[in-house]
Amino acid sequence: MKLSDIQITLSHTTHPGNIGAAARAMKTMGLSNLTLINPSNYPSTEATVRASKADDILQQARVVSSIDEALTGCQWVVGTSARQRRHDAPLITPRELAAMVSEHDNQKFAVMFGTENSGLTNDELSRCHYQVYIPANPDYSSLNLASAVQLISYELRMEYLASLDEAPLPEAIHEPVGAELMQGFYQQMLETMEQTGYYNPDVPKQLLLRLRHMFNRMQPDDSEYQILRGFLSSIKKSIK
Amino acid sequence: MKLSDIQITLSHTTHPGNIGAAARAMKTMGLSNLTLINPSNYPSTEATVRASKADDILQQARVVSSIDEALTGCQWVVGTSARQRRHDAPLITPRELAAMVSEHDNQKFAVMFGTENSGLTNDELSRCHYQVYIPANPDYSSLNLASAVQLISYELRMEYLASLDEAPLPEAIHEPVGAELMQGFYQQMLETMEQTGYYNPDVPKQLLLRLRHMFNRMQPDDSEYQILRGFLSSIKKSIK
Repeated sequence: MKLSDIQITLSHTTHPGNIGAAARAMKTMGLSNLTLINPSNYPSTEATVRASKADDILQQARVVSSIDEALTGCQWVVGTSARQRRHDAPLITPRELAAMVSEHDNQKFAVMFGTENSGLTNDELSRCHYQVYIPANPDYSSLNLASAVQLISYELRMEYLASLDEAPLPEAIHEPVGAELMQGFYQQMLETMEQTGYYNPDVPKQLLLRLRHMFNRMQPDDSEYQILRGFLSSIKKSIK
Repeated sequence: MKLSDIQITLSHTTHPGNIGAAARAMKTMGLSNLTLINPSNYPSTEATVRASKADDILQQARVVSSIDEALTGCQWVVGTSARQRRHDAPLITPRELAAMVSEHDNQKFAVMFGTENSGLTNDELSRCHYQVYIPANPDYSSLNLASAVQLISYELRMEYLASLDEAPLPEAIHEPVGAELMQGFYQQMLETMEQTGYYNPDVPKQLLLRLRHMFNRMQPDDSEYQILRGFLSSIKKSIK
């Protein structure tokens, strides 16, 4: 799967700031392929400002005057829509879209966003193989254009990372000490608890089991272990 | 799983417009529980304008002056961060966070976002059981605040929708105590460490941060908490 196989396609965008914000959203997720169909007031300073350091996406963007030109070379066309009507293309979620892109390696996908207020036209919707539908709050589904681009780009990136078969997260740094060291700790802890009068070995109350259960969750690393042992040693000294 | 169990917590937000945009992002995904720690220039018209029709989220938002107040009653604290350093809480993805919320039904989660430029402070990070990490483009990971809130809220909603289709899991058995009780424990622990001579407040060595990190992993429940506090009290008495 290649993120460059996905062409974000913004049709008749009214506010150039939204184009800039969409470019930023794309770049944070590693997408770079942007096509603009008849944008209003574009290029514009507002778009560049909102793009922040993603203005390279704007500079590379293709600006075209027709949907036919925009979709040239795209094998799959997916429209974004909040509506579902008779004769519309089937609805999929952003996650299903991402899985579909992954399954069709090296094929070109256009993901198309309509004008801000009214969305895709009937002509545009009729080009779509699928409609991608963000399952938003039905009482308030008003995502702005850049937020919708952000969510869809995010799902595409998550699928892309999964396709690399790599953990997306850095390695865990935490290195717990071994069980044998923990046994020494429990022994010292119980002895100290007896010395302070907290624990009476004649009335066992399963304290060792409780402590193990607690500190099994903590899993101290070496330096944390030294803190625990050092504290216990200081208690012993301060009692004498 | 209830979306109202998730408290979005914005700390020291500089631009009120970002608060409004975050409220809008939350509402599109069905989240409503917003807490603001010392926001700058808030309330403000800009926040209300950017919230669009999500200004009810702003009106219900809690504005507090300290992190302790913000986290009262929260059993899980998850910070958002782009960094990973030694001694930080483990990293999880937004999707893993959503799964975790779903697994701990009826427990309260605070998802905390730091100030726009520098993120969470070391003190704030040390309160966190986990850090949620959006696996963005490493060459350009600059998501704005509202976009980060949008993505995380989206994953929570996706998990919530999935949970509606599933038979409910048994209730979580382990019920960690809230953040405000843990604050009392840390205070008593440091005092005791000072009394036994383990800790010298003139040579701070970040002991509080280390302790938080350790006990964030333990997450004692009520009876375990009583063991810890009871042991500390017994030390104090045995020294006198």
